[in-house]
Amino acid sequence: MRIRRTELVAPRRLELTQADIAPASGEALFEVAATGICGTDLAIYDGHYAVPLPITLGHEFAGTVVEVGQGVPGDLLGRRVVGEINITCLAAGGVTPCAACRRGLASHCTARTVLGIDRAHGAFASHALLPARCLHVLPGRIALEDAVFVEPLAAAFQTFELSPVSPGEVVVVLGAGRLGVLVCAVAAYLGARVVAVSRSEAKRARALAMGAEAAVAPDAALAAVRDRTEGLGADIVVEATGSPDGLAQALDLVRPRGTIAAKTTCGLPSRGLDLTRLVVGEVSLVGSRCGPFGRAIAALASGAVRVGDLIEGRFALDELAAAMAAARTRAKVLVRP
Amino acid sequence: MRIRRTELVAPRRLELTQADIAPASGEALFEVAATGICGTDLAIYDGHYAVPLPITLGHEFAGTVVEVGQGVPGDLLGRRVVGEINITCLAAGGVTPCAACRRGLASHCTARTVLGIDRAHGAFASHALLPARCLHVLPGRIALEDAVFVEPLAAAFQTFELSPVSPGEVVVVLGAGRLGVLVCAVAAYLGARVVAVSRSEAKRARALAMGAEAAVAPDAALAAVRDRTEGLGADIVVEATGSPDGLAQALDLVRPRGTIAAKTTCGLPSRGLDLTRLVVGEVSLVGSRCGPFGRAIAALASGAVRVGDLIEGRFALDELAAAMAAARTRAKVLVRP
Repeated sequence: MRIRRTELVAPRRLELTQADIAPASGEALFEVAATGICGTDLAIYDGHYAVPLPITLGHEFAGTVVEVGQGVPGDLLGRRVVGEINITCLAAGGVTPCAACRRGLASHCTARTVLGIDRAHGAFASHALLPARCLHVLPGRIALEDAVFVEPLAAAFQTFELSPVSPGEVVVVLGAGRLGVLVCAVAAYLGARVVAVSRSEAKRARALAMGAEAAVAPDAALAAVRDRTEGLGADIVVEATGSPDGLAQALDLVRPRGTIAAKTTCGLPSRGLDLTRLVVGEVSLVGSRCGPFGRAIAALASGAVRVGDLIEGRFALDELAAAMAAARTRAKVLVRP
Repeated sequence: MRIRRTELVAPRRLELTQADIAPASGEALFEVAATGICGTDLAIYDGHYAVPLPITLGHEFAGTVVEVGQGVPGDLLGRRVVGEINITCLAAGGVTPCAACRRGLASHCTARTVLGIDRAHGAFASHALLPARCLHVLPGRIALEDAVFVEPLAAAFQTFELSPVSPGEVVVVLGAGRLGVLVCAVAAYLGARVVAVSRSEAKRARALAMGAEAAVAPDAALAAVRDRTEGLGADIVVEATGSPDGLAQALDLVRPRGTIAAKTTCGLPSRGLDLTRLVVGEVSLVGSRCGPFGRAIAALASGAVRVGDLIEGRFALDELAAAMAAARTRAKVLVRP
């Protein structure tokens, strides 16, 4: 099939191209309905997060399967889908799994490519390909535009897969950007008391709408946390500022033996982590990335997590540069081919 | 009782003083047999790790109880002891525990003072005081000089209390200094395969003697780890270099979803932590500090962990400045009053 896609050929340089693609054995070709822009896209676009170029970015997508390769059940045709972005040796049909896959670390497969990030063309395109094993069929209740949030929502869930939270615990979310507000929603969904921290009044309002019990400016964060924790500090502080320098405030706000959950992938080195404070406080800093699609789909399907209000712009495929610019200040910007 | 102690009155300025002290209710006064110098002592001495001054440093000690306060059983008199250094609100006899102690985080008591570190005079002295609840009586098998290692050995055990290791897992220890080699010994005692990394040939030899299966220079570390892990990386990398810049190599050596256990309390900010790599690799950075004295005493008493060869210098109380200088290059330097 002849498709259109917008490739990043060098940092900040995009080209709309055409290509003929067809599903290989085990693959499905899907028509893209909408694709979201996230912080990782911006970091790669700016050249801070280095990946092999050229590549078509775009890894938060929803679409419809229009063609399947050999060995893929035909009933996938016409189904509305989202997709896990790690194309692992197992997902790609390999017969000898790598050391990571053998240990159950599939999302860290040493042979993987990553849709829209690492050597696999992504979804800022009319169509794209994924192994059928990566796809999740959407329940009818979820609109395709809302389904774009499954991938980042799964990443928000992954925060608490690796740093479990108990109901009633206090979770601080630093940064109420596009990922931060999803983390607020998931933490509230899991029963936490959520305090969002943002300089922006608009973002604070958004965090409250997504389930935070309080949303404060950075200079009011310490008091808000102490009030809720007998002065001890938050059980979990999620660093979702998108800046390399959010760690210092996270250390101020976390309790002894608490966790800082890192979500920022800005590609820039973090300056001035006070390792001594981390050691003395026995604090854990836990990175987390791609997460459980099933939980994200269930949360959206149940209506407990609502994302539609976060969509603040829709752009065409040939407007990707403008879409990237808009994504720097807006919550979720969609590209619709 | 009239005692002698060497107080730090300003960074790098020591004064030998005399004082009259007596055990308050619940306290025991002990005669110091020997006190070790550790990296924290050096960081405070140099002024990098700021604490209220003046203070008598010294928190790795062994001694003999010579006087007890009201409410302390008399059979503690004459016993050979080591002591936990966190003087918590409970240990100090408080009736209303603080928020941390109520949550079982006694070593993070918000009202605590810390022997030889924070507002409680330490053991670079002829005698010192601790609440009797902080003391552990030594089994006869352990020599008093070896018992000086109980406190740092407990800190080494704490690494794996907070980052559990399974037998056969690969543990890299960056830095084979005085704490690093104890971590090597504990990791080997717990069944791990230990790779020590140090620039110094002498330190590598010491790490091998303490239980590491391999000891390599930094530029050979990646190959040594890959050889043992099918290319995946170490399960746990212990950062015990004492330098703020050990984290970058730790990130190179740890496997996806592995743990970097931080032990360095040098008081200096860490430059250039690549947070993006931590997030993408879903790596955890876990600080840990004071640990279980009981496990450390048992490991020494069993003979499975031997520490005597690490003692590389003995100084008198009025030679503390020279002892500090010696501790910069030697394994364990003792001060004997």
